[in-house]
Amino acid sequence: MTKIKCTVAYDGSRFHGYQVQPGKRTVQSEIQAALARMHHGQLVKIVASGRTDAGVHAHGQVFHFETPLRVPEDRWAVALNSLLPDDIYIRQAEAVADQFHARYDVKKKEYRYRLLVRAEPDLFRRAFTTHIKQPLDLDAMNQAAEAIIGTHDFSCFCAANTEVNDKVRTIYHLSVQQEKDDETVIRVVGSGFLYQMVRIITGTLLDVGTHKLDPNQVAVIIAGRDRQAASATAPPQGLTLWQVTY
Amino acid sequence: MTKIKCTVAYDGSRFHGYQVQPGKRTVQSEIQAALARMHHGQLVKIVASGRTDAGVHAHGQVFHFETPLRVPEDRWAVALNSLLPDDIYIRQAEAVADQFHARYDVKKKEYRYRLLVRAEPDLFRRAFTTHIKQPLDLDAMNQAAEAIIGTHDFSCFCAANTEVNDKVRTIYHLSVQQEKDDETVIRVVGSGFLYQMVRIITGTLLDVGTHKLDPNQVAVIIAGRDRQAASATAPPQGLTLWQVTY
Repeated sequence: MTKIKCTVAYDGSRFHGYQVQPGKRTVQSEIQAALARMHHGQLVKIVASGRTDAGVHAHGQVFHFETPLRVPEDRWAVALNSLLPDDIYIRQAEAVADQFHARYDVKKKEYRYRLLVRAEPDLFRRAFTTHIKQPLDLDAMNQAAEAIIGTHDFSCFCAANTEVNDKVRTIYHLSVQQEKDDETVIRVVGSGFLYQMVRIITGTLLDVGTHKLDPNQVAVIIAGRDRQAASATAPPQGLTLWQVTY
Repeated sequence: MTKIKCTVAYDGSRFHGYQVQPGKRTVQSEIQAALARMHHGQLVKIVASGRTDAGVHAHGQVFHFETPLRVPEDRWAVALNSLLPDDIYIRQAEAVADQFHARYDVKKKEYRYRLLVRAEPDLFRRAFTTHIKQPLDLDAMNQAAEAIIGTHDFSCFCAANTEVNDKVRTIYHLSVQQEKDDETVIRVVGSGFLYQMVRIITGTLLDVGTHKLDPNQVAVIIAGRDRQAASATAPPQGLTLWQVTY
């Protein structure tokens, strides 16, 4: 058996998230269907770095699988892409050591959240940005980001329906930067993320950026460990899993 | 009755083109459905500057309609947008003189065709660009464009299935320009365009840009008035009706 590691991009718009769900179109089930066609109908289970929610995109999601096939490693991406729908694209495939594990071996993950900041919506960017009508105070948002960077119990930024007990995570980088005239990007790099954590952080930063929340309050919210004290969960379509580092 | 002129943007991806077709989702039928809801179920026919094909987008398509309703002109866009699906957006609405006609009064139209020029596809831009894997010779393409600019019989750039007899049109502007690292845009402004003319011009310029066709041949192709001599029709998804001038 050979272990193959793949880096995959997907447009989350038409998926019910990453993970297999009976009767629903998901990223995992589409990739497994393509692999089954290469393996004479046999199920080949893939293991990803983690799930993404419905509507969330990936630029660099990573998964692994094991195969008895002797396909040269540089042919896997071409073969899979020829079988995959047009909203999934395998960017790279390589053979890795047996010990490699796409979920357990994650060192860092980077997410990017893209905001369209202008009065008018833009239908050509509606699937990949979240529309914010009023200008954002980026200085205040970056001041709030400073309070989030570091190692903390992030219970305040974790959706209620989770089975995870240990909510301590490390955020290495969090910044808010204008990229174009009308686009602002939140970049966050961390050791790992709780359920909907990036979207709740984004919602909180947006409240700071629109002066609904004082940036000095964010440290207080983190210390309180209460999800109710943080802001609403930002919508999925602005969010992209950018990169996973091992 | 009041005559209203609207400027509308749409994402052509999920439409069977602009024009009403029985049983198909089209831009015109969606807009007319929204207008019917405002007019107690009554059909309000809209007249656009022209059709667009399936998959073709609009940044600034224009249409008019007549209405007995006394809605302030600045409320039309808000009212219609609240009733329209998320892939159509009325950018502007204004009351115009009774004589105004969205099709007959067109002075100029601008189309833009967006190319993604790089080895790898980009699934996030697949609906709004056409992917070209090899580098393009922009100098050769702009040289060919010079032969197209002006007033000519453009039979060579007109799809066969058309009822139009007079195929003389004037192209005021045609240029090929790199916009980002990996995006090149063809801009064309003309008095009017024959069926699929912009996509056939694009296909021809692409053959020049990839050295399948000598730029000096383009004047010969135009003079020959033979559709078979020109190149294949480029795909719809790179094309946007950018602006209509009256």
